[in-house]
Amino acid sequence: MMGPEIESLVAQVARLPGLGPRSARRIVLRLLSEREGRLLPLMGALAAAAQRVVVCSVCGGLDSVDPCSVCGDPAREPMICIVESVADQWALERASVYRGRYHVLGGLLSAIGGRGPEDLGVGRLLARLDGSVREVILALPATVDGQSTAHYLTERLAPFGVRITRLAQGVPVGGSIEILDEGTLAMAMSARRLAE
Amino acid sequence: MMGPEIESLVAQVARLPGLGPRSARRIVLRLLSEREGRLLPLMGALAAAAQRVVVCSVCGGLDSVDPCSVCGDPAREPMICIVESVADQWALERASVYRGRYHVLGGLLSAIGGRGPEDLGVGRLLARLDGSVREVILALPATVDGQSTAHYLTERLAPFGVRITRLAQGVPVGGSIEILDEGTLAMAMSARRLAE
Repeated sequence: MMGPEIESLVAQVARLPGLGPRSARRIVLRLLSEREGRLLPLMGALAAAAQRVVVCSVCGGLDSVDPCSVCGDPAREPMICIVESVADQWALERASVYRGRYHVLGGLLSAIGGRGPEDLGVGRLLARLDGSVREVILALPATVDGQSTAHYLTERLAPFGVRITRLAQGVPVGGSIEILDEGTLAMAMSARRLAE
Repeated sequence: MMGPEIESLVAQVARLPGLGPRSARRIVLRLLSEREGRLLPLMGALAAAAQRVVVCSVCGGLDSVDPCSVCGDPAREPMICIVESVADQWALERASVYRGRYHVLGGLLSAIGGRGPEDLGVGRLLARLDGSVREVILALPATVDGQSTAHYLTERLAPFGVRITRLAQGVPVGGSIEILDEGTLAMAMSARRLAE
């Protein structure tokens, strides 16, 4: 009824994370009704990204230059923040609370997912510890896999004599106590600090 | 930090209906991490749709042929269902409850939006009433604009002696009485039928 090209486009859009057939149809209709304003600019942006964006050979981040603009920025502090994914790196950059460099693991140790230490690419990380790096921050998720990965990396990094830190855990800013899980409450309680 | 190509792609995706910066970043990361499996197929589907999909010159629907496959299907019954948008047409087709043809208005009369009768393209609709059309169904939304458009079209169609119907209104199937608005309840009550 809608023609094979529309059906195929809806199917491709519906496969994107967070979308389904309903939202995909809505998006496709909007694109087709505004070709000049939306469809063609989107096609251009996709083509440019497909052609130019590369994985940084140093940190595993994404950029159109390699090394990426973060790794290549001499003003960045000599610290490495280890994150699971590029999404996590972007979240930290948006928060503007960190001015060092990154290392994107691309995944965590996972017993269920069958990801072992050899899949973490630790060699690439250790190669970056050339003596100038003052600190390694483990910004990994507060999950079982995240914490076992943090534990493993701490052991592997120990011989290098670099300062190893983890993100603090506790009550999120703006977070209500009432809805927090027990694990977070226990952590927030045991890591309590003197009120200022 | 993420490079101009990624920023521009995130901006384009974030403009799509139902999406925002957060979901756009998630989608872009997925696309860039699966170029062969997702990014390139999506680019291909967009290019094919941009190149081939046209607005049907008869009904205003979308297809890769003109007249569209619905208008060109001799097995469709000689009825015209008037809808606001292609999205509404697709919803009716998916429900498989109607085997006639369509007429897509592309908008409703709207005092606030400044859309008057001359914007409805009624001439194109009336030109289709060649004597073979048995019935015109007004499948317009149960809103003020939808109902004033239905009223206007009923007046314009009256001289043609064609049967004009509207979709029934009432309690949605699976709908709870408790959450229905007063207007729907009033309609459902006044249009009540003998229990079978």
